[in-house]
Amino acid sequence: MSDFREQALKYHSEPTPGKISIEISKPAETVKDLALAYSPGVAEPVREIAADVDNVYKYTAKGNLVAVITNGTAILGLGNLGPMASKPVMEGKALLFKRFANLDSIDIEVSHRTTEEFINTVANIADTFGGINLEDIKAPECFEIEKELIKRCKIPVFHDDQHGTAIVTAAGMLNALEIQGKDISKAIIVCMGAGAAAIACMELLIKCGAQREHIYMLDTKGVIHTRRDDLNQYKLLFANNTDKRTLEDALSGADVFVGVSGPDVLPPEALQLMAPNPVIFACSNPDPEIKPALAHAARKDLIMATGRSDYPNQVNNVLCFPFIFRGALDVRASVINDEMKIAAVNAIRAIAKEPVPAEVLQAAQIDKLEFGKAYIIPKPMDPRLLPRVARAVAEAAVASGVARIELPDNYYL
Amino acid sequence: MSDFREQALKYHSEPTPGKISIEISKPAETVKDLALAYSPGVAEPVREIAADVDNVYKYTAKGNLVAVITNGTAILGLGNLGPMASKPVMEGKALLFKRFANLDSIDIEVSHRTTEEFINTVANIADTFGGINLEDIKAPECFEIEKELIKRCKIPVFHDDQHGTAIVTAAGMLNALEIQGKDISKAIIVCMGAGAAAIACMELLIKCGAQREHIYMLDTKGVIHTRRDDLNQYKLLFANNTDKRTLEDALSGADVFVGVSGPDVLPPEALQLMAPNPVIFACSNPDPEIKPALAHAARKDLIMATGRSDYPNQVNNVLCFPFIFRGALDVRASVINDEMKIAAVNAIRAIAKEPVPAEVLQAAQIDKLEFGKAYIIPKPMDPRLLPRVARAVAEAAVASGVARIELPDNYYL
Repeated sequence: MSDFREQALKYHSEPTPGKISIEISKPAETVKDLALAYSPGVAEPVREIAADVDNVYKYTAKGNLVAVITNGTAILGLGNLGPMASKPVMEGKALLFKRFANLDSIDIEVSHRTTEEFINTVANIADTFGGINLEDIKAPECFEIEKELIKRCKIPVFHDDQHGTAIVTAAGMLNALEIQGKDISKAIIVCMGAGAAAIACMELLIKCGAQREHIYMLDTKGVIHTRRDDLNQYKLLFANNTDKRTLEDALSGADVFVGVSGPDVLPPEALQLMAPNPVIFACSNPDPEIKPALAHAARKDLIMATGRSDYPNQVNNVLCFPFIFRGALDVRASVINDEMKIAAVNAIRAIAKEPVPAEVLQAAQIDKLEFGKAYIIPKPMDPRLLPRVARAVAEAAVASGVARIELPDNYYL
Repeated sequence: MSDFREQALKYHSEPTPGKISIEISKPAETVKDLALAYSPGVAEPVREIAADVDNVYKYTAKGNLVAVITNGTAILGLGNLGPMASKPVMEGKALLFKRFANLDSIDIEVSHRTTEEFINTVANIADTFGGINLEDIKAPECFEIEKELIKRCKIPVFHDDQHGTAIVTAAGMLNALEIQGKDISKAIIVCMGAGAAAIACMELLIKCGAQREHIYMLDTKGVIHTRRDDLNQYKLLFANNTDKRTLEDALSGADVFVGVSGPDVLPPEALQLMAPNPVIFACSNPDPEIKPALAHAARKDLIMATGRSDYPNQVNNVLCFPFIFRGALDVRASVINDEMKIAAVNAIRAIAKEPVPAEVLQAAQIDKLEFGKAYIIPKPMDPRLLPRVARAVAEAAVASGVARIELPDNYYL
């Protein structure tokens, strides 16, 4: 671990600090090149954009540019460490956008006093970009921030900690339920955690068929129920009219456990309370709500997913966010709506059911992967994700009327 | 011209829109690479920065990153066309930062209602960057904006239209006066134009020895004098206690004309009114205040500079801004102060007096360049600018106490 720590610090500092750079994408050597790139040549695209603002997509990098924006209030599992400490994470996200979807991406760290000031700041700079990925912003502020920014910005705004997590979780969950022979509309779901990711996951599962009254959400005080008087408006939507109070109460007879909380909060013996063939998503990172070995020892009939790459069934946002933005930007979607999110869920699900390309096995250093209990979602390095998810999302944007240009000919076909 | 227009539009749109991109600067192929770049490895630099915020310079791209920020209210000579129309210019500026000083640079276009809102927006995102280059913001708002942002930001903030122009103008002017055998402290200076660049040029000339009472600044209403009651606080500093009212009045006996106004406002016959061996800086772009051919026909004893690359003595901001930021960022200067600006002036001046490298002649497609009336400032492609100006600026930052780290060993030596 100390060796890994050293490697991580070295990676970030040598030979140059950081891991992204800005480069010139056109010839810029000669006097002539520069006369085209800057004065006097640059006046021509300026005039074209002044005449029709949509030309900004034709003559500038805007249409391929995603801002990764944060205030550093909920950095990874580390908490509120401020905007500067978040910068390596945001640059990392920018790196992933480039690596997986060839999107240009730059991080913006925002200092602010009020939530309103954060919203105004982001709204004021939004036109610079083709899309905005909000990141590591704590709940409940993140809900208002996203809602207001979606309203005020002409470009897609997407809080990945909420919706990226929800999309990948839903894709994996629907496949897991299918394998376990369960119907989502009947599944009893326990959600440990009531933060941004938890709420977004449950909302998306509901859109995929889960029943709100079948969901037992727990915060640090236990089950969220209708007789509690300490709930914010977001938790209130999950207040269940139930006598269940503890995790054990909730797990009794449940089909599904989704953990978006903290390490080791799910005792192995509690698994015995669940219905046959349960599904356990223990997504706390780096340490899951229950260690897979303990879970498998307790129940042979479960399907288990975590947030970690060293266990099967990794729930990893990178399966979604690069591609949902790729699809959204390529048809200039004004928002990322539910239709697009569900299209992403279905595209990710479908990939897991198909034969796995040799290069994926190689990258994952695994001999064989076959749709089943130990392989419910694609691996992050799967090259099918880009074309399939991007296309599904772009098509859904067009079909739902939020695309501002047609699907490019043969788009990812 | 139509052919050039077509080339400029093609340059900006093919094969991809725009001219800058964001790239990955570290290995990002394997699962291991990504574990270092993002979760879990990225937690290590996060912790280091949380422990000491200065580590953000060690582990992220911040220290080499310059934001080019505008609201599009004064785009080139084209006016207030709004933030989106300015984007090609801002991306062009970012391209020049990279091309000339290997600085990573990204444009940010700001929409806002009030000046205060612009200032708040930029201040809130400032920590993302190592420095901020303000660009194409109209006067008089630009003065307040720069002043407030310098006060509120921990990083250098520099309005290039003011100070970049002033530095290059001062370098050329001091060399021209030297060649003409004139003493700046005695020179009578006529400044046509009273915008941001004009005021900054005159202020810097004063810091280089010019006398404020020897300056006659003209706006659209003529000479700015003490009996006018229509002056804002910035013009008021140049209100001259004089009976001169017209351009001709002002030029009578003057040693220097600086034009930062518009095309063809200086009639050739007016040049006859000036003192022997005058200096004419006609910097309006693309069309100068007087065409060089007309000026030379009117007076054989003058030195003439313009903003154009197709005449001798081009006053071009690119001689300064990439290198002043390079020097400032390399010693983590908290501001770009007068000492640093004057160091840049002197470094640029000195280069013009030295033998010209063969590669500069080649790039400029000129057989010979020798310090004199037709060569008072270096050419933009001169490779000596980077090391010499950056070093002079960095040394001045250290000497004046605004550098936060030592000059690196053998810095550009």
